[in-house]
Amino acid sequence: MGPHPAVAEIRRAVRLALADLPEGALVLAACSGGADSLALAACLAFGAPRLGLRAGLVSVDHGLQEGSRERAEEVVVLAGKLALAPAEAISVTVGTAGGPEAAARDARYAALSASAGRLGAAAVLLGHTREDQAETVLLRLARGSGTRSLAGMPASAGLYRRPLLGVARRTTRLACEALGLLPWDDPHNIDRAYTRVRVRHDVLPVLEGALGPGVTEALARTAALCRDDADALDAWAGEAYERLRREAGAGTGGAEGGAVELPVAGLEGLPAAVRRRVLQRAALAAGADGSALAAVHIEQADRLVTAWRGQRRVELPGGVGVVRRYGTLILASTHT
Amino acid sequence: MGPHPAVAEIRRAVRLALADLPEGALVLAACSGGADSLALAACLAFGAPRLGLRAGLVSVDHGLQEGSRERAEEVVVLAGKLALAPAEAISVTVGTAGGPEAAARDARYAALSASAGRLGAAAVLLGHTREDQAETVLLRLARGSGTRSLAGMPASAGLYRRPLLGVARRTTRLACEALGLLPWDDPHNIDRAYTRVRVRHDVLPVLEGALGPGVTEALARTAALCRDDADALDAWAGEAYERLRREAGAGTGGAEGGAVELPVAGLEGLPAAVRRRVLQRAALAAGADGSALAAVHIEQADRLVTAWRGQRRVELPGGVGVVRRYGTLILASTHT
Repeated sequence: MGPHPAVAEIRRAVRLALADLPEGALVLAACSGGADSLALAACLAFGAPRLGLRAGLVSVDHGLQEGSRERAEEVVVLAGKLALAPAEAISVTVGTAGGPEAAARDARYAALSASAGRLGAAAVLLGHTREDQAETVLLRLARGSGTRSLAGMPASAGLYRRPLLGVARRTTRLACEALGLLPWDDPHNIDRAYTRVRVRHDVLPVLEGALGPGVTEALARTAALCRDDADALDAWAGEAYERLRREAGAGTGGAEGGAVELPVAGLEGLPAAVRRRVLQRAALAAGADGSALAAVHIEQADRLVTAWRGQRRVELPGGVGVVRRYGTLILASTHT
Repeated sequence: MGPHPAVAEIRRAVRLALADLPEGALVLAACSGGADSLALAACLAFGAPRLGLRAGLVSVDHGLQEGSRERAEEVVVLAGKLALAPAEAISVTVGTAGGPEAAARDARYAALSASAGRLGAAAVLLGHTREDQAETVLLRLARGSGTRSLAGMPASAGLYRRPLLGVARRTTRLACEALGLLPWDDPHNIDRAYTRVRVRHDVLPVLEGALGPGVTEALARTAALCRDDADALDAWAGEAYERLRREAGAGTGGAEGGAVELPVAGLEGLPAAVRRRVLQRAALAAGADGSALAAVHIEQADRLVTAWRGQRRVELPGGVGVVRRYGTLILASTHT
């Protein structure tokens, strides 16, 4: 008799996510003890040796709840039983920057990256499921910031891999049951003070009720399609940016002191979606503050190209000014 | 004293939407008598003469409710008071294809297009508001069909223009009040048998509650950004398609009998988002049934390019087969 279908599905997803790693590489599962990451860790323990890989585990203690240190240590004990080694619990201090969810996330990723570096891991697996992806798309929708934002979480980015983005949350719970693992239910997951919890428990069920079942899958599919679209447009914008910089440089002898110059005629020839991405690149290259740079700023800079009527300098966050002079758009720091 | 701010906002939106029309052109407002289209019609009546344009009105009677013919005729009487001429009520027969909402929409647009043709109108204005656009994005999300789908309704397409896509529904109601117009409240707008009504009354309030105010604006902004992205990618795919067809033609002497040939090496060099759009174009050019052609079919055809292991022919709806032969992808009707 083969494994339970839920177990088989997760093992297959983990195997596909690891296929490109070199023999002997160390892979870590990031594991809170919840159903998602517990099933992930167990299936990594099963699959890694079969692919000639080593498998370990890291459990992050956020220090936000009574007994969180003990729980992280229990997960490490369980890792030993699953033959995941090395396995470690790391305690982090969660700040306040960007709100409680963002601060916890920042602290968690910093700890995971540090741990992976220390242990020499080639990859860290995260247990985000299809439902997590759908929630992310809905959270991003509320920002209205377009295709890249709707692309949700990447299946792979740097050290991090998310094998379960196509797997239903319910499947991870079934897999834990089938494997005799007892997942921990984080009380934060039902605390409506968190936006993500409200999306999970209030928004998604109402969406399913109004639009029919399959909304979660549709949102996850939307994310994947938007990711491909955003990648293609970024590639186009990258090429256009380099080409336009060369054209401006050939005419003027090159920009000075970190300023970025782009020919207006060349910008005018680009589709709006590409032109805005080129302006975004130019703004960052000139020293604009990426975390504060919003669509409205790019829109203002764009109007120097598409709706020119002698406007004054457009100011971008981070002390970068944009002016149009004799057919050239110049983005330059106002600090120098 | 100037006009009420709501009236001023709608007049401005209508003026901007008409700016490119030639002097003397006839513009029709499609008007159900609801607040959105009533405010639109009144502001068209005000603005058109100031732009040297003629303004008329069409009211479509869908024949789905008791008294609908009388109401359409009342709207025409009101049009006379607003000096909108010509003004006419048209009765249509709503079929069943695609469900009640799609059938009513198809019948409405067919009637509006026929009326515009008969009256020689250069444009037909539709009263869709920012809320309608947000609802459309949510409805499309449930399909999971990507950027073009999320782009929602276009501000301008063929004869049709939607000046109010950036205007809040509430503003149209305030404008009607300020102008002394009594809008008709369609009972269908609160009938939860309609998916759009459920999105309006169940989903959007819950989304606003979970994610904060501004979700409607964010969804409308998402639509606009996705439209630009989809336009740019379609342009790219259009160029790539023509180029690859020329390349294939140069090698083989051209495709025969409506078949489309594309060099695999050229397809492999494209980003996934562009390659899929090229395959979509090729499928339609070869005679595939556009209404039945889904992402899954394009995905299968794509695997002949990206995951080649000697697969058999991929069948597309409409009797089109896709095969790979000696480095060329061939899409051809199986009927001939």
